[in-house]
Amino acid sequence: MEKTFEELLAQWGKIGRYKNVAEPFHCDVNCKLFMGHLGNHLLNAADFHSSDRGFGMRYLNAVNKTWVLSRLVIEMEDMPRRYEEFYVETWVESAMRFFTNRNFKVEASDGKVLGYGRSIWALIDTESRQPTNLLDIKEGTIVNWAESGRTCPIAKPGRVKMSKEAPCVATHKASYCDVDVNGHVNSIKYIEHVLDQFPLDFYKDKMLTRFEIAYVAESYYGDMLRFYMEQTGENEYEVRITKEIPEGETECCRSMLRFK
Amino acid sequence: MEKTFEELLAQWGKIGRYKNVAEPFHCDVNCKLFMGHLGNHLLNAADFHSSDRGFGMRYLNAVNKTWVLSRLVIEMEDMPRRYEEFYVETWVESAMRFFTNRNFKVEASDGKVLGYGRSIWALIDTESRQPTNLLDIKEGTIVNWAESGRTCPIAKPGRVKMSKEAPCVATHKASYCDVDVNGHVNSIKYIEHVLDQFPLDFYKDKMLTRFEIAYVAESYYGDMLRFYMEQTGENEYEVRITKEIPEGETECCRSMLRFK
Repeated sequence: MEKTFEELLAQWGKIGRYKNVAEPFHCDVNCKLFMGHLGNHLLNAADFHSSDRGFGMRYLNAVNKTWVLSRLVIEMEDMPRRYEEFYVETWVESAMRFFTNRNFKVEASDGKVLGYGRSIWALIDTESRQPTNLLDIKEGTIVNWAESGRTCPIAKPGRVKMSKEAPCVATHKASYCDVDVNGHVNSIKYIEHVLDQFPLDFYKDKMLTRFEIAYVAESYYGDMLRFYMEQTGENEYEVRITKEIPEGETECCRSMLRFK
Repeated sequence: MEKTFEELLAQWGKIGRYKNVAEPFHCDVNCKLFMGHLGNHLLNAADFHSSDRGFGMRYLNAVNKTWVLSRLVIEMEDMPRRYEEFYVETWVESAMRFFTNRNFKVEASDGKVLGYGRSIWALIDTESRQPTNLLDIKEGTIVNWAESGRTCPIAKPGRVKMSKEAPCVATHKASYCDVDVNGHVNSIKYIEHVLDQFPLDFYKDKMLTRFEIAYVAESYYGDMLRFYMEQTGENEYEVRITKEIPEGETECCRSMLRFK
């Protein structure tokens, strides 16, 4: 028999905590975890957390619904170093009709806070691909998971500053390793492609402290992606990814990177 | 005090066994683990196994030596599916002066054998970058780790069949996410770039059953990689990666893929 909210809460609590390790091939030239792989650890934590509590992908797929990641923000004081163990904590900040806010905390094994993350998810119907009311699933119990006692001391996703004149700096045709089971370019691969627009020396000199990405439209295997980049502050850059369509091009995602 | 071979053997045994999970973003359009990510799990297992037993990277780096992966072969009956747990076992088959043969077994959580791997590693001096005698480290005790009771029922790496006339099918400039702490394109990224030379429909119709790669020369951030591909059998392809150098180009690695 399916467990009630109270049973699940007693079993799991509102906050999920997951142990990870910075694997050697997931570390960059500075011996620190790539931001893309950190993003993967956060999304895994979100997946485990929601699955354990009865509103994960497997439950949703069975009722023709799925979570779609709309925004992800990661802000780090420091990054896990090669071979270091670290913890990702995640919790639901709030759940409205069409969106859920989910936060993350990244902690070193000695308890030092390395950084935080914010994410916004929409629930969509897998047939119509339209947003669907998340209060309609499991009698709206998802709102009960909201954890009000935890703060996430990083700014919410910001507004786009990028001008329409930003130049196209690269193109990439979406390939086999880019796409997930649905044939969509996966959320992590966009992050990696954005990171790849900056030269190696940049990462040797500076630390990427904040990464924001907004997922606007899905792209598919074979789509020609175009990368537009502009410096929008002293250590701040925005990258927009579009895909070519018969009528021209359409935006897939936009991201902001802040370095220190 | 440093542990003796006998103490380490009593603690760890000759065979290492590591639990893994096929993470959702590491699975392809068929809901199965990407071959590149499987390769990463094997190399992690090699790293954990050798570190626990006193001849890992951290010990070697302290004495100005390092392992260099020369060849990797993976042959699979089936691949772990999304969310499935699986085990990687690894052991040293033999250790000669300049090379170590290390094997792998991949097992589903129900005990079903999914496949096997073979790898060949050289020990090099980090200053001269020249091969160094692995019997000179720790009084040659590395040979004691050889496990003779285990078989690895897949063929050793094969010979190159590819002709000199194979066409160049793609180029790629080595980017930030491609390179490791030494600024070298990492072993796993080569695998992913090779896999990306085949169209998505190919993977929908066929299963990649054997993947071989020989690492010949290192490439670095910014190197222009060229991919040459040729069909060498009914379901068999070879891909050679070269890098541009002032005098022309030089081979970095070559790989063979067999599909079913």
